[in-house]
Amino acid sequence: GKQQQTFLEILLKANGLNTVVLEARDRVGGRTFTVRNKETKWVDLGGAYVGPTQNRIFRLAEEYGIKTYKVNEQESLVHYVNGKSYPFKGSFPPMWNPFVLLDFNNLWRTMDDMGKEIPREAPWKAPHAEEWDKMSMRELFEKICWTSTVRQFATLFVNVNVTSEPHEVSALWFLWYVKQCGGTMRIFSTTNGGQERKFVGGSGQISECMARELGDRVKLQSPVYRIDQSGNMVVVETVDKQTYTAKYVIVATPPGLNLKMHFNPELPPLRNQLIHRVPMGSVIKCMVYYKENFWRKKGYCGSMVIEEEGAPISLTLDDTKPDGAVPAIMGFILARKCRKLSELTKEERLKRICDIYSRVLGTEEALHPVHYEEKNWCEEEYSGGCYTAYFPPGILTQYGKVLREPVGRLYFAGTETATEWSGYMEGAVQAGERAAREVMCVLGKIHQSQIWQTEPQCLEVPALPFVTTFWERNMPSVGGLLKFMGVSSFLSAATAAGMLAYKKGLLPLPRS
Amino acid sequence: GKQQQTFLEILLKANGLNTVVLEARDRVGGRTFTVRNKETKWVDLGGAYVGPTQNRIFRLAEEYGIKTYKVNEQESLVHYVNGKSYPFKGSFPPMWNPFVLLDFNNLWRTMDDMGKEIPREAPWKAPHAEEWDKMSMRELFEKICWTSTVRQFATLFVNVNVTSEPHEVSALWFLWYVKQCGGTMRIFSTTNGGQERKFVGGSGQISECMARELGDRVKLQSPVYRIDQSGNMVVVETVDKQTYTAKYVIVATPPGLNLKMHFNPELPPLRNQLIHRVPMGSVIKCMVYYKENFWRKKGYCGSMVIEEEGAPISLTLDDTKPDGAVPAIMGFILARKCRKLSELTKEERLKRICDIYSRVLGTEEALHPVHYEEKNWCEEEYSGGCYTAYFPPGILTQYGKVLREPVGRLYFAGTETATEWSGYMEGAVQAGERAAREVMCVLGKIHQSQIWQTEPQCLEVPALPFVTTFWERNMPSVGGLLKFMGVSSFLSAATAAGMLAYKKGLLPLPRS
Repeated sequence: GKQQQTFLEILLKANGLNTVVLEARDRVGGRTFTVRNKETKWVDLGGAYVGPTQNRIFRLAEEYGIKTYKVNEQESLVHYVNGKSYPFKGSFPPMWNPFVLLDFNNLWRTMDDMGKEIPREAPWKAPHAEEWDKMSMRELFEKICWTSTVRQFATLFVNVNVTSEPHEVSALWFLWYVKQCGGTMRIFSTTNGGQERKFVGGSGQISECMARELGDRVKLQSPVYRIDQSGNMVVVETVDKQTYTAKYVIVATPPGLNLKMHFNPELPPLRNQLIHRVPMGSVIKCMVYYKENFWRKKGYCGSMVIEEEGAPISLTLDDTKPDGAVPAIMGFILARKCRKLSELTKEERLKRICDIYSRVLGTEEALHPVHYEEKNWCEEEYSGGCYTAYFPPGILTQYGKVLREPVGRLYFAGTETATEWSGYMEGAVQAGERAAREVMCVLGKIHQSQIWQTEPQCLEVPALPFVTTFWERNMPSVGGLLKFMGVSSFLSAATAAGMLAYKKGLLPLPRS
Repeated sequence: GKQQQTFLEILLKANGLNTVVLEARDRVGGRTFTVRNKETKWVDLGGAYVGPTQNRIFRLAEEYGIKTYKVNEQESLVHYVNGKSYPFKGSFPPMWNPFVLLDFNNLWRTMDDMGKEIPREAPWKAPHAEEWDKMSMRELFEKICWTSTVRQFATLFVNVNVTSEPHEVSALWFLWYVKQCGGTMRIFSTTNGGQERKFVGGSGQISECMARELGDRVKLQSPVYRIDQSGNMVVVETVDKQTYTAKYVIVATPPGLNLKMHFNPELPPLRNQLIHRVPMGSVIKCMVYYKENFWRKKGYCGSMVIEEEGAPISLTLDDTKPDGAVPAIMGFILARKCRKLSELTKEERLKRICDIYSRVLGTEEALHPVHYEEKNWCEEEYSGGCYTAYFPPGILTQYGKVLREPVGRLYFAGTETATEWSGYMEGAVQAGERAAREVMCVLGKIHQSQIWQTEPQCLEVPALPFVTTFWERNMPSVGGLLKFMGVSSFLSAATAAGMLAYKKGLLPLPRS
């Protein structure tokens, strides 16, 4: 027998609990969304990727017999920058200019070092929480990075990981986010990282299997608009005019979507304001289908890291089926680009996407797709965006502590309330099970110490450590190098004076 | 006869229009809230202050015979900083250190000059819109201000005007906000500025008079939770289970409170995301009542500008009735302080407030209030906070243009959609009348050119120009002075090198 109870087992089997799931949409799955059709067989238009250390979602999938497969990364990835394609292997594109290399190495090292100071369960308690929360990631990058090459890549890193812009997000929050995913390498990597695998048949199957098990306890098309806790029971009303009465309610929406509900009594002041302060990121997930898997023939695996302002897509991955069928490339339109391109037609977006794929892969074959699927998550009323909520500067330290604090008989789940892989399917499972155990605890069925549980590692998907080399650990930053070279006395003073003059608007120089 | 139609006249009298007002609360007035009781006679616990150039709200008040009176500013104001009180006259506290004076003068001049570049009706079209929107006001202050004295006052200026922190708000947005109120002097001044007057009997009377005129067309306790535009008419449903059908709907909530409604069809992607990105500020309005108007006897008018991290209140104004009855001091608990002090009891807050008043005014009399009223706007579900919505970095340029763009048969009012005194009662009137005229226009009753109307100046409250002196216009900034003094070659290089080293974390120096 298994030791741990799943969220579902708790819901279903625990001593006489009677549960109901109110789902706003006409389908389960939320930010996962598997579409089936002739052209694609199946396609994940929402959350899809899973990887090592995401052990809860693997456990859940396994229980339902859902298998994973590795995203293709056998051939070269491509880094497209300044109008040229550079094939590479590994997680991050290599940098050849020695100053850029120092700067690049220092960026990841600094972010990971800062992350080590941040408690995953209470980032607002980090020693420098207030200072870092007042900064945006853009400000932090201006402090850390000496070269525009690295600053630009850092922007892409934020865009890709949290579908928002460096100037939009709190540095404390973003550093926490990367940390609770296991660091810069784990979050960004395909092999051995967050994008290593997908589920055969689509990630949507997990929610679908759970829903099937729950049967008619899942009510579709039932958006909740009212939660009344003024009596002994919680009374919940839905837009389809049904009323449900419960002892406890788990709210599993993104925090901002609590606003869809009218509360009686009103939420406490901090929660009432928090839910206006945590917007969802902006992304269109775009799948382009081709007759043939032409990129692999050219020695490319299908992963592209694209740095060009005019390009719609910033990151791609091969989305061909594990058996080689239905060749496809998945690409993300992210943050500022998402808002700009939301106004085009689907056809215009496809054309621009194929254009850039053709340039990056260096072949006209990319211009002839056989099918296209896309999902603009910004238009979803009941998500508000994807992948996850972000915290603008100042919010995490002022409001973070109420994120999963119960309000009367309301408990809060949703991936945003997780402490490991928050923002991912894994975080959603952690949060849902934790919230269910909070309710079990208040019902006297488990002890408080059992609410938070660790998860044993999935045997099929072991996590390899990321080993840093002596040089990665000890290479100086650009600033450190200048200091070491003893040029600080004159040259750096002159540079600094120039930079300060520039910062104060006295000089019209472009930045390095 | 009057030339202009009021919003109400349009609603009531225009050819055969049948209107209904759905009000979420059990009272009208929204963010204005006049309470009457024995101890206070009446007190404005919400929006209260009006001043020159706010001509629409004066016109509306006049129609209902509501008079204004001047907030007392006859005696000295007090500036409390570094634990000492400095009496002063005028809008801003004087600065005596010559470097600080240059810096202070340069701050206001720079903000006003930047404001001149920003179109009030489309701040996202400003020449430097993108650059300024990527910065928070904190970043801008770090660039403009050379002294910590001025940076600290600048923080108070943001706290007081928009109930949020400099690091939380976009520089573009805040500069726009100040500009559309008429500049730094107009927005901050009592005499000749936004706080010059109050309404005798309370500002809530205006909405109450309008509601009385509308009679049973105003439905209280009718929060809207659903707006369905899928048919020929708009179908609106309220939490009290009423259904209303209309040709057009004006949504007059703060943008973020659109989220309380479930839309069919869904809102367009940019609006769907905008409404998650514009949080309301944080403020507790606190009224302390005393037996006697002891501050005036000491030569103080009751205005205090308090710079001390431990003090709950940052700004006060005399709130004694115009006839001298019911002596009282109004004070604001703002932004970071509001969130911190929300957790205390009412009694604890009162005690801390009296403590600081006693220290600032230098008398124990402040320790003996006879009554206390307060309103924490953060706890209001149907406001989300006060005074107004703010735009975090990056949002105004990406989403601003959809702020008042109609969605099908929905039109948008609310003070956040105004272009003059947005955030104030004046802005609410401008927005409401403009939205009503948009509907009149689409009904073919007025021409498109009539939608936006200017307002003639209120004769009783003329606006005096703010005249800057030759010195104010031409005094150098601290940076300019250093340059002028020719020290730039050596001294400033050294300073700059030091500052850069500090900024890069190489030196542990405190900032200037």
